Amino acid sequence: MAAERVPTIAITGSASGIGAATRARLERAGAQVIGVDVAKGQEVHADLSSAEGRRYAVAAVLRRSGGALDGLVASAGLGMDGADAAAVVSVNYFGVRDVLVGLRDALAANGSSRALVLSSIAVAIYPDIAPQLVDACLKGEESSARELGTACGSDMAYAASKLAIARWARRAAVTGDWIGAGIRLNVLSPGITDTPMPARALQDDGRAAQLGALPIPIGRMALPDEQAAWAEFLIGEGGGFACGGFYSVDGGTEAALRGEDWPTPCQAQPQNDLYRLATTGDSP
Amino acid sequence: MAAERVPTIAITGSASGIGAATRARLERAGAQVIGVDVAKGQEVHADLSSAEGRRYAVAAVLRRSGGALDGLVASAGLGMDGADAAAVVSVNYFGVRDVLVGLRDALAANGSSRALVLSSIAVAIYPDIAPQLVDACLKGEESSARELGTACGSDMAYAASKLAIARWARRAAVTGDWIGAGIRLNVLSPGITDTPMPARALQDDGRAAQLGALPIPIGRMALPDEQAAWAEFLIGEGGGFACGGFYSVDGGTEAALRGEDWPTPCQAQPQNDLYRLATTGDSP
Repeated sequence: MAAERVPTIAITGSASGIGAATRARLERAGAQVIGVDVAKGQEVHADLSSAEGRRYAVAAVLRRSGGALDGLVASAGLGMDGADAAAVVSVNYFGVRDVLVGLRDALAANGSSRALVLSSIAVAIYPDIAPQLVDACLKGEESSARELGTACGSDMAYAASKLAIARWARRAAVTGDWIGAGIRLNVLSPGITDTPMPARALQDDGRAAQLGALPIPIGRMALPDEQAAWAEFLIGEGGGFACGGFYSVDGGTEAALRGEDWPTPCQAQPQNDLYRLATTGDSP
Repeated sequence: MAAERVPTIAITGSASGIGAATRARLERAGAQVIGVDVAKGQEVHADLSSAEGRRYAVAAVLRRSGGALDGLVASAGLGMDGADAAAVVSVNYFGVRDVLVGLRDALAANGSSRALVLSSIAVAIYPDIAPQLVDACLKGEESSARELGTACGSDMAYAASKLAIARWARRAAVTGDWIGAGIRLNVLSPGITDTPMPARALQDDGRAAQLGALPIPIGRMALPDEQAAWAEFLIGEGGGFACGGFYSVDGGTEAALRGEDWPTPCQAQPQNDLYRLATTGDSP
């Protein structure tokens, strides 16, 4: 039996939380991990809140990987704990998007690879997420999005940036640049997970009441390793036929609050050839 | 190191398709599988289209398992290939529900277990799924649902029964009877998979045109084993924090056709204490 090639996986936010738990799992499974974090001690020390930091991170990962990656887990994120709202927008949306786009060629190099974006249960349960902020992100208008984020506050900036990056990923995933290049791009949406982010938030009494009021039918927060199990699966075998998927792993929070909202039937759209073809077989 | 206990997993529809592929995977991993199928050659030979057949299947699984199960994969299903519409409704909704309910106590026996329902990409892409048929299923009115299914035809019966069972599972999953008893109940929604069901459908020219017109960005059908990898994961480690989840594994079909439809922000509902608490921390 030939020795298996050691896969090379880049992880942003690898110093703590779900990123660190994912790193530990992938290393136990024999992968070579290139960690990127604003905290020191990982392979690449970079601040993804600025375009310059993102360029540096991409260049450093390309150098260390030799220009070919088997997977990328974009787990770096800020929020829920009093972080600066503009930085939340920059890291959670532009930091993820720019690293993905910057490493796309490396992900395409081996002909089959996986990329994973971390969204959040916040996108399904935070009410009235500001559409202007989501749109500014999706249009790539970082300075405008930062201003809107500051105006909305860091909680809204968190929910909107996590919704925008989920939408960006689902749009990109099905295009020739991504699935056409053999890259399975998917979204993992963790529920409340026992990481430093909620731990800092829980030090605030009002925030603790908010989190305490959230229904989590399973009765506890997730362990980081439970989310990392999903990241490892989606970066590996689970990515075989998954493309553009949005996977909420939340202890039942989403089903409890939004269970009737998805899946919903689509409406027949006579003007849409795809629907007509798919349902009647008629030619356009 | 103590020897690990051999898990006992029941699988309906274990003789073919995704059920058979899941059986093969779980057995490779060392599980004891109790297979249920209308085709002979599995441990339990039962027809889930009748209440009597369901009762027999439940009793036979309880007898073989000694009344304790670690997992249940409800993959038995009919449709898309000219099956009788009333039977489609009975097997896909009532067959799944009754087997789950009948085996709930066995799933609760060990304090931690997993149950998985197989839905279908049809629920997200089949237009205008008949709400009356979905409602009749959810109300438990089998004879009425069978009549409506016959009136709508087998394609609609397939989509509606797969939507109804997904909704039933998401409702049940977060309740005390299920997650409160340590049972993680989730839904896997496979895209078009290379099993006997579409193979039979593809023998019909019109149906082949329908399936051929469906966008599958990954460019091919799923292998049964790619769906079975998800079933194995959700029945195992992936079920750690997953509860009431709806997981579409479809090669990009859902993102291509419905990517903007989910996730969507919820609306603030002042009358809803859960939302108010979760977002403001105010007491009711």
